Amino acid sequence: MNRFFLSPACFQPGEVIFDPETSRQVSRVLRLRAGDRVITLDGTGEEYLLELQQVSKSSVTGKILTHQMTKSEPRVALTILVGLTQRDKFEWVLQKCTEIGCAAFTPVITSRSLVQDIRSAEQKIERWQQILREAAEQSGRGRIPVLNPPVLFLQALEQLRGFDLGLVAYEMERTKTIKKMLRGFKGESLGILIGPEGGLSEEEAQRTKQGGIILVSLGARTLRMETAAIVASTLILHQLKSLD
Amino acid sequence: MNRFFLSPACFQPGEVIFDPETSRQVSRVLRLRAGDRVITLDGTGEEYLLELQQVSKSSVTGKILTHQMTKSEPRVALTILVGLTQRDKFEWVLQKCTEIGCAAFTPVITSRSLVQDIRSAEQKIERWQQILREAAEQSGRGRIPVLNPPVLFLQALEQLRGFDLGLVAYEMERTKTIKKMLRGFKGESLGILIGPEGGLSEEEAQRTKQGGIILVSLGARTLRMETAAIVASTLILHQLKSLD
Repeated sequence: MNRFFLSPACFQPGEVIFDPETSRQVSRVLRLRAGDRVITLDGTGEEYLLELQQVSKSSVTGKILTHQMTKSEPRVALTILVGLTQRDKFEWVLQKCTEIGCAAFTPVITSRSLVQDIRSAEQKIERWQQILREAAEQSGRGRIPVLNPPVLFLQALEQLRGFDLGLVAYEMERTKTIKKMLRGFKGESLGILIGPEGGLSEEEAQRTKQGGIILVSLGARTLRMETAAIVASTLILHQLKSLD
Repeated sequence: MNRFFLSPACFQPGEVIFDPETSRQVSRVLRLRAGDRVITLDGTGEEYLLELQQVSKSSVTGKILTHQMTKSEPRVALTILVGLTQRDKFEWVLQKCTEIGCAAFTPVITSRSLVQDIRSAEQKIERWQQILREAAEQSGRGRIPVLNPPVLFLQALEQLRGFDLGLVAYEMERTKTIKKMLRGFKGESLGILIGPEGGLSEEEAQRTKQGGIILVSLGARTLRMETAAIVASTLILHQLKSLD
């Protein structure tokens, strides 16, 4: 069934009034009609089953039949801090990790990042928000992941200290696996930083350790950045019983 | 360190003689010189540490310093049977699942595959082989994954019966997780079929069950085909202690 995230203002007692853009998508792109059922979400994790009533090009309304908390949201909130890289790879990470169940993303500029300009990153935020929203709708999420502003590497380390557990994936680390590091973890929030292509510099790895953040291994093989982000999300949510 | 898969004929007693194409890559693209060290692989899982001796545009030779079995090859052989889809997505699956550690791939044409023509798939095999080889070199694999010929859905089910365990990922399945299905698994070979965009048809799901193949869940959220292939590979190799 089609799912749409709408702003809280669209939710009225007993009915939902779609915004013009989503109305156009419902009527023109998806060609839905009065009587069809869809799910709308208010972004808090609550989902509303609707029967469409009025459907025109610029205006769609639906009657609320039932509502419930989405059952597919992970129990733990996982934030991926990911080195900015080529556009398609970065967008892939946003899309795939949203499907897998990540709660938030922070773009990071490291010494080896391919993108070094924080302002050029800020210009892309609207496009990235759209990718997160569509991936959340298609994968059945109850919330759209949060996109944090881009930060520099040292700010990312500071951000990692704010989680119940902060990790940095490091290809030179061979023994501290995700599984070992999550043993006995009872917290609710985790952050993991995935370095850029080429990995962290030695200095960045040193600063991470000095900051009390754990360097972890993602396995015996060398993963590209975008693969590492997907594998790390899968392993962490699986280990914390938040994938199923 | 740079890694190169070479044909067995290149390996001579005490030295390795590179083929002309790889020689050009070593000398012109990577600009390596006599005295530099590289690793060459013969495809059996054995890797040879070389010191380059003669380096010219069309001919490179190296002295074998040591050799050993690659330590990063998974203990179990996982074959991904994956619905043919848009070119970039299919190639992503080949590349990412090679990094993660899959042993083989079989392209599958299902009733909802975007690509329905088995001959057009066969024309792309050389390109796909190249993607597998490069991903294997870059991720530190000891073997290049095997690319099987494209098959139709019913042939894929038949192929699945030939593994110690055959699975089909199915988004309508909710309780049989990878973890549950692999509990106590002691075999050496597994195959998992990942359906195309749009999923398996109900008839295909029925035929799978009738064939004695297990339909498994990859989690609570709906994954795109390419995400499903990566998540399934990660979970299976992790569960069988073949990721680290």
